[in-house]
Amino acid sequence: MEYRKIKDQDEDAIHVHVHDDIGSLRGRPHSGPSSATVASGGSYADTSKWKRKSVVTLALTVLTSSQAILIVWSKRAGKYEYSVTTANFLVEALKCMISLASLTRLWRTEGVTDDNRLSTTWDEVSVYPIPAALYLVKNLLQYYIFAYVDAPGYQILKNLNIISTGVLYRIILKRRLSEIQWAAFILLCAGCTTAQLKSNSDAVLQTPFQGWMMAIIMALLSGFAGVYTEAIIKKRPSRNIHVQNFWLYIFGMAFNALAILVQDFDAVVNKGFFHGYSLITVLMIMNHAMSGIAVSMVMKYADNIVKVYSTSVAMLLTAVVSVFLFGFHLSLAFFLGSIVVSVSIYLHSIGKAPR
Amino acid sequence: MEYRKIKDQDEDAIHVHVHDDIGSLRGRPHSGPSSATVASGGSYADTSKWKRKSVVTLALTVLTSSQAILIVWSKRAGKYEYSVTTANFLVEALKCMISLASLTRLWRTEGVTDDNRLSTTWDEVSVYPIPAALYLVKNLLQYYIFAYVDAPGYQILKNLNIISTGVLYRIILKRRLSEIQWAAFILLCAGCTTAQLKSNSDAVLQTPFQGWMMAIIMALLSGFAGVYTEAIIKKRPSRNIHVQNFWLYIFGMAFNALAILVQDFDAVVNKGFFHGYSLITVLMIMNHAMSGIAVSMVMKYADNIVKVYSTSVAMLLTAVVSVFLFGFHLSLAFFLGSIVVSVSIYLHSIGKAPR
Repeated sequence: MEYRKIKDQDEDAIHVHVHDDIGSLRGRPHSGPSSATVASGGSYADTSKWKRKSVVTLALTVLTSSQAILIVWSKRAGKYEYSVTTANFLVEALKCMISLASLTRLWRTEGVTDDNRLSTTWDEVSVYPIPAALYLVKNLLQYYIFAYVDAPGYQILKNLNIISTGVLYRIILKRRLSEIQWAAFILLCAGCTTAQLKSNSDAVLQTPFQGWMMAIIMALLSGFAGVYTEAIIKKRPSRNIHVQNFWLYIFGMAFNALAILVQDFDAVVNKGFFHGYSLITVLMIMNHAMSGIAVSMVMKYADNIVKVYSTSVAMLLTAVVSVFLFGFHLSLAFFLGSIVVSVSIYLHSIGKAPR
Repeated sequence: MEYRKIKDQDEDAIHVHVHDDIGSLRGRPHSGPSSATVASGGSYADTSKWKRKSVVTLALTVLTSSQAILIVWSKRAGKYEYSVTTANFLVEALKCMISLASLTRLWRTEGVTDDNRLSTTWDEVSVYPIPAALYLVKNLLQYYIFAYVDAPGYQILKNLNIISTGVLYRIILKRRLSEIQWAAFILLCAGCTTAQLKSNSDAVLQTPFQGWMMAIIMALLSGFAGVYTEAIIKKRPSRNIHVQNFWLYIFGMAFNALAILVQDFDAVVNKGFFHGYSLITVLMIMNHAMSGIAVSMVMKYADNIVKVYSTSVAMLLTAVVSVFLFGFHLSLAFFLGSIVVSVSIYLHSIGKAPR
């Protein structure tokens, strides 16, 4: 539950080291004011784009999966007494630092241009607080939904995020999914839920109406935040991703500072900012920062659909790795869910939408 | 378990009352020697075919579902002490009588033709015992597989029939399924299994190697029998279905008579043929006969793929009806499985194979 907070706030993230691929990005059709080189050949640019998309997707999958493994590890080690708000703040601060470091390096090699300068206009920056604010509202609601469902039930209901992301992706970004891709998306949701089925999962069917409403609202908030972040990042394709993320992230820091003041001010003053931190806490913060960066790269170079598939595969990967690391057993439901998710990925890839 | 025996032996079945549609059947491209009217227009024939296909599919679905409901009812009533071999024999005999009655009626209205005469050649009739023999071997194996899996585990493993039917349909009948239809078929298998998940279903994963082998062999036997029956029936499209089923069914009776002699001879001699029969036994026999007829019609006018979808939907329908009839509860797994099966049906219908 605390983990989820960190994870969700991560999703408005910062990214680093796309330096090598900046060139081909500038060849995009909607490219805004561009002051630098344009990708040489269409085919080369396509291969390069595809490669970059694959690398960031793979990175997100591996990072999300190792994130979940760190959570399991920390739970088993019983080390979970640090303040979640301070950890979230540090994740945001770390990502901010990484993006500034990347920018500094870029300024040294390429010089300051319109695309990579940090200074900005009100028009550009005004939308950046919105995703962070949405996640804040969602995290507040999270405290209340537990009046209606337990933690495993909430894990099941969280799969509604998949559907809400698909619907909002269609409505807000106006991107079309083919009929087969819609079918694949429904299967992804059903498959992920199936893979997570436990013997007590049926309890979720007894969720009262208010619980369902809150779960749907939270799914919409989460989906909206993700799709909105993609919209912001893609609105100015030529704008450097580090700058975009720096601004996204500054607001993430601000909202988390607010959360510390409201929720944990006394604890921080009395026990100290880093009370309860351990090696594993530091690893988790670093992993969350890296995952956040990977999410941001996926938003810039792929899209929310790829992100959803990536995190779904990560969930399955986590379970398989946990068999070896922690001696977990895989259920029949897990195998069935994995089959459905695999077919969903296959269908998504063959069911390209008409342009 | 006893029920399954009846059901499986039903699958080489007899059919009645396609009288009204005989005309359009004769318009088929592979039509053999035909002495009667040919369907007037292509479009009219198509609509008529589609209508007939829908009607037989719906009939099979409803009959299979009500079959399962009768099973549940009889189990709850605790009435299960009749001899299964005699019941199977009566099912076959009933279907044989129905097909003869239909033929008599046909002979009276249309006269005896090459297509509806009962007398036949060795070449035509020699293949008819094969499906019945295959089911016999499968039913014998059924007694041995329970050394490795329990009854609920066997229910789960029976879903392998779906995959084996698809594979053998492709190999033996040489009909092509599109990539999307293959994906749909895998989903159908996963969805049906998911819908049947119980809290103890994970035990099936502990099935020893021999159990898996037997389950796969049984699935192949069952799939082969189904596909082979379709091949026999479709080989002579102009041949009257009642005649085809009469011959199929005569061998079904013969094999079941053999089963009575081997397994239940003493019981039948000492207690009588109808010992333990009740109203519900009679209803079950009638229902099985009707379902067998419906299977046969689906084989003639549709195919094994339609049959598999039809019986899968019947399984879901049974669960829903049982909620109202017996106060059963639907599990989350059932809902998820139903979603996957529904998407599978949708994908199958949009993913038409290239001809």
